[in-house]
Amino acid sequence: MKFSIERGALLKAVAQAQSVVERRNTIPILANVLIEAEGDSVQFRATDLDIEVVDRAPAMVEKAGATTVSAMTLNEIVRKLPDGALVTLSDNAQVGRLSIEAGRSNFELATLPREDFPVMASSEYATNFSAPAAVLRRLFDKAKFAISTEETRYYLNGVYLHVADGESGKVLRCVATDGHRLARIDALLPEGAEGMAGVIVPRKTVGEMRKLLEDDEMQIAVSVSETKVRFATPDITMTSKVIDGTFPDYTRVIPQGNTRRLEVDASEFARAVDRVATVSSERSRAVKLSLDEDRLILSVNAPDSGAAEEELAVAYADEKLEIGFNAKYLLEIASQVDRENAVFLFNSSGDPTLMREGDDMSAVYVVMPMRV
Amino acid sequence: MKFSIERGALLKAVAQAQSVVERRNTIPILANVLIEAEGDSVQFRATDLDIEVVDRAPAMVEKAGATTVSAMTLNEIVRKLPDGALVTLSDNAQVGRLSIEAGRSNFELATLPREDFPVMASSEYATNFSAPAAVLRRLFDKAKFAISTEETRYYLNGVYLHVADGESGKVLRCVATDGHRLARIDALLPEGAEGMAGVIVPRKTVGEMRKLLEDDEMQIAVSVSETKVRFATPDITMTSKVIDGTFPDYTRVIPQGNTRRLEVDASEFARAVDRVATVSSERSRAVKLSLDEDRLILSVNAPDSGAAEEELAVAYADEKLEIGFNAKYLLEIASQVDRENAVFLFNSSGDPTLMREGDDMSAVYVVMPMRV
Repeated sequence: MKFSIERGALLKAVAQAQSVVERRNTIPILANVLIEAEGDSVQFRATDLDIEVVDRAPAMVEKAGATTVSAMTLNEIVRKLPDGALVTLSDNAQVGRLSIEAGRSNFELATLPREDFPVMASSEYATNFSAPAAVLRRLFDKAKFAISTEETRYYLNGVYLHVADGESGKVLRCVATDGHRLARIDALLPEGAEGMAGVIVPRKTVGEMRKLLEDDEMQIAVSVSETKVRFATPDITMTSKVIDGTFPDYTRVIPQGNTRRLEVDASEFARAVDRVATVSSERSRAVKLSLDEDRLILSVNAPDSGAAEEELAVAYADEKLEIGFNAKYLLEIASQVDRENAVFLFNSSGDPTLMREGDDMSAVYVVMPMRV
Repeated sequence: MKFSIERGALLKAVAQAQSVVERRNTIPILANVLIEAEGDSVQFRATDLDIEVVDRAPAMVEKAGATTVSAMTLNEIVRKLPDGALVTLSDNAQVGRLSIEAGRSNFELATLPREDFPVMASSEYATNFSAPAAVLRRLFDKAKFAISTEETRYYLNGVYLHVADGESGKVLRCVATDGHRLARIDALLPEGAEGMAGVIVPRKTVGEMRKLLEDDEMQIAVSVSETKVRFATPDITMTSKVIDGTFPDYTRVIPQGNTRRLEVDASEFARAVDRVATVSSERSRAVKLSLDEDRLILSVNAPDSGAAEEELAVAYADEKLEIGFNAKYLLEIASQVDRENAVFLFNSSGDPTLMREGDDMSAVYVVMPMRV
């Protein structure tokens, strides 16, 4: 194998590949990236056995072939090469070395045979559709904060991507929950997605595929089977196993009859919650919301360290209410609001509370109260 | 105690104070900042029993007095208050609470009595001088990378500040070494510093007092006794114990007869060292320098992972030489060079090597070679 490639193109492909590789590996080949040169392009393939990413980059291929080298070391080297450098990679299979040349720099990295590299079995995908990057980004970005980190409830360790009945017809929906809060985000159903089986996309996949979604206008090809999900741009294909479990019936968790309506400037609210929570150093800091006519008092009482109180002018016309929440959860849902005021709908101080952005029903959050 | 103060002035004073406070404290009062209001200003005092910092800020004092509260919590609260807010602090000694009011926010923090706060005993300082912040900054910044982290050699855990004989008369000098490398930085001797006893300024003090030195033109008042050192600006006074030990005689370590002279662009050299070191993942990565007429080859050989080589055009007119160094040490000394080319003076591959910036003798570095 021998090819030459511009440093920037090489860095982009290698950086994306190496981020999938797990830092600590007991199987040496999993630390490596598989480099395959053929025609006028090179493929860089990396995997952690759950996710596989393939990056393609144009290159001047002198001799087709393939080998594997440490993804991290290759990435570090390329990162440190001067901008604009032309990099030549050539493989000496006899001695098990890959040579990397750029200007007056010369590196040799130990290789492992391509035959040992675990390539993910290809699947039949029952559903194929395409969606703009901006749409997918919104779906996953707004839901991911609620993903559970409890390993025993593995079926909550991801975002549930599925087709659901929205306010006005079928929607593409992402749901995540950890039992304390829940996010339900909808988007217009893309053509071809109608019959899709629901899949739970693991947390790491959500983070990795996020990197494919930076360009708003880019169309992302999404393929879904019962066991796998694939996201692809013209240059990058990311395939991931989905979580083998059943996502719980979340619809029962979303309160329907909450009528006490609070409307508040979301960022002002978030800053105030952040401030009053400062006085308590506990992990699960409770903030009390005391609602009266057009007035919200946020308060925290930590007997050991102190107390805090802040008043906000809000829109509230219902009965008086006192209700407590985990400060971190309140902050996280308030920071999801990016366009309008946050609207909270309460029932009683013991019932789940619903939050949305203005009257937009395409992003709905639920948070459980705590006793204060 | 009751006073009002502008949020920015309060934040600056409290932030500086709380950075001295140790995160983990077994003695509760050491987590606190002592606030003393009198006349038209307020003092904020914090200590870890080795360093004491006192910040003064102008304030409208309604009622003189003093109390102590958690430095970290107070700093967090003030940081989160809106820019430009007027903050009123008032102490209720009966209930042991400090109230902090700003706009519609109201905080109460638990206090501890001022009597319990350990105030550092005042000292007689034998030497007092003043020096521009820029001069002190250079002295400590260029030396501190070489401070030892080995706790058993506690007398190397700081920068040795003393008066020494320079090329052309007495100089104010900072020296730090960990036995593998050494930095010796000189400045013009300020008036009044002549008779100063040498002191070892601890690593933490070097880091903390660095924050006083941002303003180039600011004159810093320095006071030195056998047990303490003090740095002061009009607003901030930082007092620190010095390390109770004898700094070793470093002059014998600085090679005098090294004649093989290499001159190299420092940043080009540093980047090349950084690149070739990438192939080895070991902690103490050895880089080999092979010198021949106007040519330097940097190489690393890591049998397990690979090899790297890079050639640099340099000025070198002496005998061929091969010498190895710890890559990290080479990088660190090369990055001290900010104005000119780096000049290395070698003797043999087993002897300490000297580095300086061009022909400037006011900053000299020594690094021990390693076998390659």
